[in-house]
Amino acid sequence: MYRSHNCGELNASHINTEVTLAGWVQKSRDKGFMNWVDLRDRYGITQLIFDEGRSQKEVFEAAKTLGREFVIQIKGTVIEREAKNKNIPTGEIEILVSELNILNASLTPPFTIEDETDGGEDIRMKYRYLDIRRNPVKNSLLFRHKVAMEVRKYLSDLDFCEVETPYLIKSTPEGARDFVVPSRMNEGQFYALPQSPQTFKQLLMVGGMDKYFQIVKCFRDEDLRADRQPEFTQIDCEMAFVEQEDILNVFEGLTRHLLKEIKGIEVEKFPRMTYEHAMKTYGNDKPDIRFGMEFGELNEVAKSKEFPVFNAAELVVGIAAPGVGNYTRKEIDALIDWVKRPQVGASGMVYVKCNEDGTYKSSVDKFYDQNDLRHWAKTTGAQPGDMIFVLSGPADKTRGQLSALRMELASRLGLRKPTEFAPLWVVDFPLLEFDEESGRYHAMHHPFTSPKPEDMHLLETNPGKVRANAYDMVLNGNEIGGGSIRIHDKATQQLMFKYLGFTEEEAKAQFGFLMDAFQFGAPPHGGLAFGLDRLVAILGGQETIRDFIAFPKNNSGRDVMIDAPSTIDESQLKELHIKID
Amino acid sequence: MYRSHNCGELNASHINTEVTLAGWVQKSRDKGFMNWVDLRDRYGITQLIFDEGRSQKEVFEAAKTLGREFVIQIKGTVIEREAKNKNIPTGEIEILVSELNILNASLTPPFTIEDETDGGEDIRMKYRYLDIRRNPVKNSLLFRHKVAMEVRKYLSDLDFCEVETPYLIKSTPEGARDFVVPSRMNEGQFYALPQSPQTFKQLLMVGGMDKYFQIVKCFRDEDLRADRQPEFTQIDCEMAFVEQEDILNVFEGLTRHLLKEIKGIEVEKFPRMTYEHAMKTYGNDKPDIRFGMEFGELNEVAKSKEFPVFNAAELVVGIAAPGVGNYTRKEIDALIDWVKRPQVGASGMVYVKCNEDGTYKSSVDKFYDQNDLRHWAKTTGAQPGDMIFVLSGPADKTRGQLSALRMELASRLGLRKPTEFAPLWVVDFPLLEFDEESGRYHAMHHPFTSPKPEDMHLLETNPGKVRANAYDMVLNGNEIGGGSIRIHDKATQQLMFKYLGFTEEEAKAQFGFLMDAFQFGAPPHGGLAFGLDRLVAILGGQETIRDFIAFPKNNSGRDVMIDAPSTIDESQLKELHIKID
Repeated sequence: MYRSHNCGELNASHINTEVTLAGWVQKSRDKGFMNWVDLRDRYGITQLIFDEGRSQKEVFEAAKTLGREFVIQIKGTVIEREAKNKNIPTGEIEILVSELNILNASLTPPFTIEDETDGGEDIRMKYRYLDIRRNPVKNSLLFRHKVAMEVRKYLSDLDFCEVETPYLIKSTPEGARDFVVPSRMNEGQFYALPQSPQTFKQLLMVGGMDKYFQIVKCFRDEDLRADRQPEFTQIDCEMAFVEQEDILNVFEGLTRHLLKEIKGIEVEKFPRMTYEHAMKTYGNDKPDIRFGMEFGELNEVAKSKEFPVFNAAELVVGIAAPGVGNYTRKEIDALIDWVKRPQVGASGMVYVKCNEDGTYKSSVDKFYDQNDLRHWAKTTGAQPGDMIFVLSGPADKTRGQLSALRMELASRLGLRKPTEFAPLWVVDFPLLEFDEESGRYHAMHHPFTSPKPEDMHLLETNPGKVRANAYDMVLNGNEIGGGSIRIHDKATQQLMFKYLGFTEEEAKAQFGFLMDAFQFGAPPHGGLAFGLDRLVAILGGQETIRDFIAFPKNNSGRDVMIDAPSTIDESQLKELHIKID
Repeated sequence: MYRSHNCGELNASHINTEVTLAGWVQKSRDKGFMNWVDLRDRYGITQLIFDEGRSQKEVFEAAKTLGREFVIQIKGTVIEREAKNKNIPTGEIEILVSELNILNASLTPPFTIEDETDGGEDIRMKYRYLDIRRNPVKNSLLFRHKVAMEVRKYLSDLDFCEVETPYLIKSTPEGARDFVVPSRMNEGQFYALPQSPQTFKQLLMVGGMDKYFQIVKCFRDEDLRADRQPEFTQIDCEMAFVEQEDILNVFEGLTRHLLKEIKGIEVEKFPRMTYEHAMKTYGNDKPDIRFGMEFGELNEVAKSKEFPVFNAAELVVGIAAPGVGNYTRKEIDALIDWVKRPQVGASGMVYVKCNEDGTYKSSVDKFYDQNDLRHWAKTTGAQPGDMIFVLSGPADKTRGQLSALRMELASRLGLRKPTEFAPLWVVDFPLLEFDEESGRYHAMHHPFTSPKPEDMHLLETNPGKVRANAYDMVLNGNEIGGGSIRIHDKATQQLMFKYLGFTEEEAKAQFGFLMDAFQFGAPPHGGLAFGLDRLVAILGGQETIRDFIAFPKNNSGRDVMIDAPSTIDESQLKELHIKID
């Protein structure tokens, strides 16, 4: 044993105890005749004291050689500290050191091991093992563990069984973004890494497992946006003999449990909102409802006048930004520039100041009178002192742009409070979405999602209108989970593949095993998956997932610490029956 | 909700309750005017009754159409059963059915869904989703979940933090058996799937994580022996500031906890045995100590006489098989044939019958007198009524052969009881082992294992004699876990790579990140990994791991259910910058 206690547990009750500690030198303060060292481990920091008068000469001298991040072991006596530090649990004591053993020296670290470090992202990633010593990263990993354990306990207590599904599976044409693995034993053939265990969990339902979950790595070889990783973790769940309502209840229960256990927050029953409503009201299928700023559609009044921009538009829609009625012309112009950025893509913006005296001043006063503007204010819910921002154009695009503006304003106004949690369900997603590029419909969720029976008749005539038994859980403007009731009979599944443009042969070659399984007594079933990385980041009040992942990859999919991916030997390629092209 | 109760929970206390159940038709017995159906789900079986007199006509008729494995939902009343079945929890009641809803029909399954099935291995694997409905497989998966949860709870309670390490890592030349993954974004480069998270867990120790664990998939592309899988699961653990003793104590504690919680068995403190002792006494570094039959080395007496076979041998060694002194000549010959099989490889075997009257009768009476044989009996611990079997030849090979014979005899004699658990630690493994093929030493455990300081001086002169701080946990003749205290300083790690035949450049290219990390304050650390698949199989009293894995692969590494691996599109290969060779 290298220690009798850790660096976070000693306090006044231990005074006069002989202890052995081990850890890292956080910092030392050499006052000549006295030398203090902060000793750090995962559990905390304990102050050590080396005193010319009270310490042995060689121990006292050795302490002067300690550099930052040296690993040491000490023996000593717990004594009362003169200058107490009420901010840390060990702040009332210090250790008068009698023995010092340097376990390992350290080069000067390339960045400071402090909560606020001087290391940039790149250098932190290269030396991730040092970055992990910092509280923000270390605590994020501990937090992730705690969340995962709570998930497991909660689901296990509800009779869910965690089943490990395979990582070496089959590539599908759907799987344009599959990572593949050449097989040595099966020449010219490849495994794929799962983008999700979807078909396996459905087969477990066919197999009578009844309630399945798994916290599992998934893989997607896609161009990485800022906060995506090629490997990510899902809480993957499936239940048999359930309807949508049952699934929503179980996983709402899980989420409420997490909020309560992890954050100490009790939330009301989750609101439910249809996809259609979410799109009309927030321009977004994952609305952040921590704040209002709901959309007001202004077509009626806006198009009744001679303003050509609005008259040419499919949709005129606005939001009221609270308390910014006094924005200067410069501030407004900056915001107009912001919505014109290519990432947002609006061509212009109309604004209406709602004066405190109940009058209005707009950028379109030439076309609209006070009555018109009063109507806009009513529709957008604007109060005196607010500002209404109005966008116009093609309906879908304009909603998307206004949603971006809504989120931007909320951020600027501090309405997206990381300590506030506003979950909801978005339900009744469309089954299919039209892909302009390929000119055909794709499954919005995946091809195993069941259409609502009452919409089945629209599949031939108006496929875009068919709603699915699909749902997303949304938390603070992020989709943290999504799922559906699945198709569980062969005929419907075959039909679905047909509508998605599969030939009968393709469907059979790729998913024959699943359709075969459906012929042997498949129960009705459904489920969902949470993105664990995102979930813990949001629960942790963070915007980015990266510090909740021990060894993340960069935007090129590289691990810069170990320098992967890398080239491999010619002989290895040969064994795998492949060549570099 | 498709059900008010599951099929395992109704009993006499529910009589007269209206219930809704859903599940699979296990079997039906049609007696003309009466029809019984056993309805099955994960939780049990409930008997349904359709009665011409008491059921509605259409329900009664519909029940006659039900085939095996149909999925149905029923409503009905719990009534007392006439012929009670005390063997199942629901055996006192049955459900008088008032409504029947066929949720899904089923083709006749290709094998019976019974504990003892008529399906062979191949067909069971092809229809694994049906196989999972069978109790032995279903219960194995539930059992695995229970073990994994207990492991997680136990380690979490000891402050271990589960950290997910990456799956897309770097291939190493050591990794001849790496599965690799071509990178789309990094042309001509490959990730590798981890054979274990070894270096990452060490980096977590450098990062101050202090106590790490992870239940994690690992991958090895090796020719599959009967009971190996290309993807397998480890309970991977590491601790900082510990010595070997600390690690043995923690994981002995975990194993005792599992035996107690899962099996209700209390075991004594685990015996510890050196590798050297295990090899000399059992011919095996994972001895099954549920039974004795320890080796007796007979060189002294055996070589004192004129028996040329023994005189030419490096080692003469025997075991006493209890109670088989009355084996017939035919039975003995069969055993001699058995040790001559190529898998064992002995060239012959000497035997000594220990008669009840204290005399001996051996196959080498020509050379050895009763005194000699009495000495053999004493050395091998043979009692009257036992039989001594003696092998001879090169020491290592002969020990291996005798070990195989010992295990075979124990199996035949019923000494390997699946309900008995005899764990132990084997310690002081050699650091290196000589590989005849390459003509050089390899790391027996892995290159990160630390040599015992007191043996360091032998590294140059007698590398095979250097012992490592390495240990295995052995349970019932299986290695279920193994680990070591690691090297934690750059100089020793460099030296180790040198002894293992790495050039300085190779070591740096492959493991530079680890040696770099050691320069920034690496704490002393060590750990181990358990094989979860094997552990649960042994705890479950089974010889094979396959039924503890939901979707195992066959001996060619194929998933015959989904038919993977498979060919992939030319366009996909092109995107990955590879060609089939």
